[in-house]
Order: sequence, then C-alpha cells, then structure tokens
Amino acid sequence: MQGTMLYGPRDIRFESRPEPKITKPTDAILRLSATCICGSDLWPYRGIQTVAEPTPMGHEYCGVVEEIGKDVRNIKRGQFVVGSFATSDNTCPICKDGYQSSCVHREFMNQAQAPFLRVPLADGTLVSTNDPPAKEMIPSLLAASDVLGTGWFAADAANVKPGSIVVVVGDGAVGLLAVLSAKQMGAERIIAMSRHASRQKLAREFGATDIVVERGDEGVARIKEMTKGIGADSVLECVGTQESMMQAINSTRPGGYVSYVGVPHNVALDGEQVFFAHVHLHGGPAPVRRYLPKLIKLVLDGKINPGKVFDLTLPLDRVAEGYRAMDERRAIKTLLQPNGTK
Amino acid sequence: MQGTMLYGPRDIRFESRPEPKITKPTDAILRLSATCICGSDLWPYRGIQTVAEPTPMGHEYCGVVEEIGKDVRNIKRGQFVVGSFATSDNTCPICKDGYQSSCVHREFMNQAQAPFLRVPLADGTLVSTNDPPAKEMIPSLLAASDVLGTGWFAADAANVKPGSIVVVVGDGAVGLLAVLSAKQMGAERIIAMSRHASRQKLAREFGATDIVVERGDEGVARIKEMTKGIGADSVLECVGTQESMMQAINSTRPGGYVSYVGVPHNVALDGEQVFFAHVHLHGGPAPVRRYLPKLIKLVLDGKINPGKVFDLTLPLDRVAEGYRAMDERRAIKTLLQPNGTK
Repeated sequence: MQGTMLYGPRDIRFESRPEPKITKPTDAILRLSATCICGSDLWPYRGIQTVAEPTPMGHEYCGVVEEIGKDVRNIKRGQFVVGSFATSDNTCPICKDGYQSSCVHREFMNQAQAPFLRVPLADGTLVSTNDPPAKEMIPSLLAASDVLGTGWFAADAANVKPGSIVVVVGDGAVGLLAVLSAKQMGAERIIAMSRHASRQKLAREFGATDIVVERGDEGVARIKEMTKGIGADSVLECVGTQESMMQAINSTRPGGYVSYVGVPHNVALDGEQVFFAHVHLHGGPAPVRRYLPKLIKLVLDGKINPGKVFDLTLPLDRVAEGYRAMDERRAIKTLLQPNGTK
Repeated sequence: MQGTMLYGPRDIRFESRPEPKITKPTDAILRLSATCICGSDLWPYRGIQTVAEPTPMGHEYCGVVEEIGKDVRNIKRGQFVVGSFATSDNTCPICKDGYQSSCVHREFMNQAQAPFLRVPLADGTLVSTNDPPAKEMIPSLLAASDVLGTGWFAADAANVKPGSIVVVVGDGAVGLLAVLSAKQMGAERIIAMSRHASRQKLAREFGATDIVVERGDEGVARIKEMTKGIGADSVLECVGTQESMMQAINSTRPGGYVSYVGVPHNVALDGEQVFFAHVHLHGGPAPVRRYLPKLIKLVLDGKINPGKVFDLTLPLDRVAEGYRAMDERRAIKTLLQPNGTK
C-alpha cells in the first residue's frame, strides 16, 4: 500500500509501505474511512522536534474492521470502530482508573495516514458503533479519535462544571474543541484567546462567549480585568509553549484549575511561581478511550458537530499539501480520504 | 517588649522591639500563650534565602485576645484564639472558595516569636475556642496554626481518601503531620520517606505503615516496587527542593495526585516530564484558616496529638538556641514559651 512518511523538515512523502498484518493475536486491521493531520504532527514537520530516520505518520483514525487476531473477543470483522492515538488493554489498574493513555501496555500509534492500519490491543483500544454510520458523520467520528477527546480531557482535567468561567488558550483544532467541550459541560462563560478571524468564528459557533486577542502578560491582564481581578475558574492550555503555559497559570484564580493537553516543548515551570499561583494542574496525553463511548453517542445523537474543525478535505495521496496548508495556517485541520484500495 | 530578629545567616537576636498596637480598626492584639520556629524559618537562617535587613521572625501563634480594633465583631477580648500565618478577610471570593491564604487582602504574618502580636483582619483570620483550653492542649493548638494545617492541606490537596496508598516525602514536622492527616483521612497505607530514627518513630506513631530510607531515583524505584510497578495514589511533597519534587512526581501513579506545601527553592519542573507523568499537581501556601475549626475540634476532643512534633521547649528568650537545635537537627521543632510580660 501507499502510506505517509516524514523524511525531515517539510519533507512529507506518500510512498510504498508494507501492508499491515496481524502480528499479535490481540491485533486488528482496519480499512480506514478517514484519517487526518494533527497539530502535533507539525512539531516534527517544522523540524522543532527532529526525526532521526524516515518516520511513518498519523495517529487519528476510524474505519471498518478488516481482520482480527485470534484473541480478539469484543471487536468483530465488519464493525465500524473509532480508536485512540494510544493503545490500551483497558483492564490494568491505570486503565481502570480512567488513564488508558498511560496503560501499562500502551503503544503510541503511527502510520494512520494510510488506507490500512494495524491496531494493537484491539479489544481495549477500539470502540464500535452499533450500525455503520452515515457518511456525513465520519468527520465528527474521526475527530473523537484524538482532537475532540483531547479537547474534552482539557475541559475535564480543568474541572469545568455548570457555571464555570473558562479560558481556552490556543485556537488550534484542540483549543476549538476544548471550547465545545466546556460548553457541553455547562460553562457559563467561555473566553477563547484567538487572533484569527476564521478561528474566532468557529470558537463562537462552538460556544465561546468572549474573544481575547492579547497574549502573554497582556492576555493575563485582560482576563484579570474580565474576572474582577480574581482570574478564571478553569484555564485550558492547548498549545504547549512556555508562554502559553505561564499565560494559563497566571490567568487562573487561586484555587482554580489549569489543564494542559499538548506535549510541552522546552517548557520549564518555576516552582515558586507555581506554588504562589495556588492552582491545580493536570494534563498529559488525553485518555481518549475513557471518553470515546460518550463522545461517539453525542456525535451520533447529533448533539455536537466537532467535524467542523476540518476546513480542508483532500484525497490521502495529497497528504503533503495537507501538511503545507496547516503549516501556513491556511487550514485549521486537514481530513484525508483514503480511496479504499491497497 | 523583647522580640526575635534575624540579622543574617545564623544571627538571631532577641532584642527590644516596639510594642504592637492597634493600627487598623480590624486588628487585634494577642498575648501569646506559645509560639514556635518553623522549618521555613531555617531557609533565611541558613542564608539560602537572603534577608536584606534585620527581619522580625515568627508566624505561628495562639493566645489570648488583649485588645481589639473598633470594627472587630466576632473576636472578643479575653478569648483564646488560634490564627494562621496568612491573614484573610474570609469574605472575598477566594476565601469563600477555601483559599484564604491567597485572600485578596492577605498579609503574611511575622514577629510572632514575641510575647505580643498584632493580627490584622482579626475576624477573618482568628478562630476562638469556646473555653480557655487546658495547658496541655496548648502545643497541639499551636501546631494547628501552621504545621498541622499545612500537613492537612498536603493530604487534602493530594486527594487522600479512605483506602489510599500514600507517600510522604520529607520527615520534618510538616511531613510528620502530613502522615497524621493522611491517617485521619482514612489512608490504608502510608509510606514515610525518612532516614532519621527519631522521626521514623514519630511517623509510625502518627500512622505510617512503612518507612523508606532511599531517596531520589532509588526512592522512586522502592515506591514502584512496593506498588506493583504502578506508583502511589497520593504523594505529599513536604520539602521544597528539586530532588524532592521530582521524587514525588515520579513516585505517583498516572492519574494520581501530588501535593507540595513548602515554598520551593530553585525548583524548575520540566514540562514534558510533568506531562507524561500524567499526575494531578496542587499546592501552595496552606489555607490553614479553612481547616482551623475542624483541627481545633480534633485537638480538643483528644482525637489527635500533633503537639508531639515539639521535641524541644524553651523559654522565648532562648530562641537563638531553638534555631540552633533545629538547624543541627537536634530538634524536630522548637516550642517557645513567652513569660507573659511586656
């Protein structure tokens, strides 16, 4: 088959790859209905995170089960399934506690920007729908696989609840879906920090009540002004830089909650600053598996439409253009359509 | 009156000081029944934290109300009261949320190592007992003022609950009372990390089920070994160094809770490490005021005896010896007895 490889900064190639096969009895092979490019894929694409060798790309996926290993019990051939970027057995103590993305048997997925995908620990990683979904549901179901699940974790980890005053730092696809998640959890006020007109518009559609364009210390001052000098109840950090982390921490009220869901790059938190900020901090790789059943239901019931973050759709073989569009901020997020053949 | 001043590293003087007076209508003046030396006083005493000028010392106190300002409503002359190291109005949104130590009107107390003390915002800062307490209760009531309240916050902020597996990093007075607090909250297993026989003994008396003498990475490995490779549910960091913070974070299970209650000195948390640790972090200056009514009741009902951390009692005018004994680890914590005269 043809699959996506990153050779170095801005060097994406769609090229011949070995076809995925069952290698363990707990594996499944999926024929993907859709896949996409993640904000986190841009770190190595831009060379900020170096790749030592040509690297298979992609970790967001949904599709139809093509084949299963002999120990797979719950997932059946022909089912439509959504998985997470992290595999999980869903039975270890960490999984049982809802932290499947730190499962003792976790593997991080890759090579999902391809028509077929091997998923380890299929029973613990994949969630199936009762029926094959309508075609127009595919983008939103794909979103559940990572970007929505991650935005949802951002809101959950920051203790968003009915009546909360919430700030979302970052207007990428995760930040926008963090807005949607906060809205679903009943936040009263959702302040999106964004400078881009198209993203501001989508943030408002997803439930943002206010937009703040300032950043850094000026952004913090603006949030303080809007919250009677106290700070927000919950601040969702969806970027992963030193500036965005400190902006999040300093915008939060003492006793409030900060979440962080993007891998931090060159971030160091000053102990004394964090101490006197008096906030709760929680984050990490989103345990998407915990939320998948709920998120799939919300999508299929028509309650949410997270698929709107895909503002560019391309055939899979044009994946390189998809990366370029996101890198140049011409697209928020690119959905890729495999043609279904090997 | 005579009070305690720090002039520079290891230079404590008990010398003439202005008598405290009501300066605001919300103030109270206390005649102290007891005061003490805090682990945090050792940072400037040792010169790790520099003092620019002679500095009044002491922030833990209990005693009898001698005088009140004209706007004080709840606190009455003659009452026995316990206060916190941080003043609070107890009415602002932050106080109402239980974070009185970050009150919008907070001041940090000092000059409590003296026979008399001015307490600002008396109504919001002080908690009175119904009756004058028995003399033998004084050490435990004094402990509630900071060191017990701080240990209690460590356990609360780390989400200790019935059945929890808890680790306490640090065997100072706060760490020991964090053990006592975890026990009160129903922890099933309490692992105290301590190398000192006398402190290990007190930790066991307060409820520790296990003692670990290893530190740093070896300490982490030992905790992992004791928890089936998973890590502890709650880790209470009661030191404030880079090593102790990382030891705490790395000893915690993914999804578990880390609290920190001592001002960190030269601590920088690596963003990526914290991210993949997947833990909850919370801490800061303990909101002792939130817990005071409960802690005073536990003491007066004879349920807890936190005063045991005072293993050295001196007359106030021998305060310099009290510092020396703690600096040289001859004492866990020194209680100071004013003689009651100006």
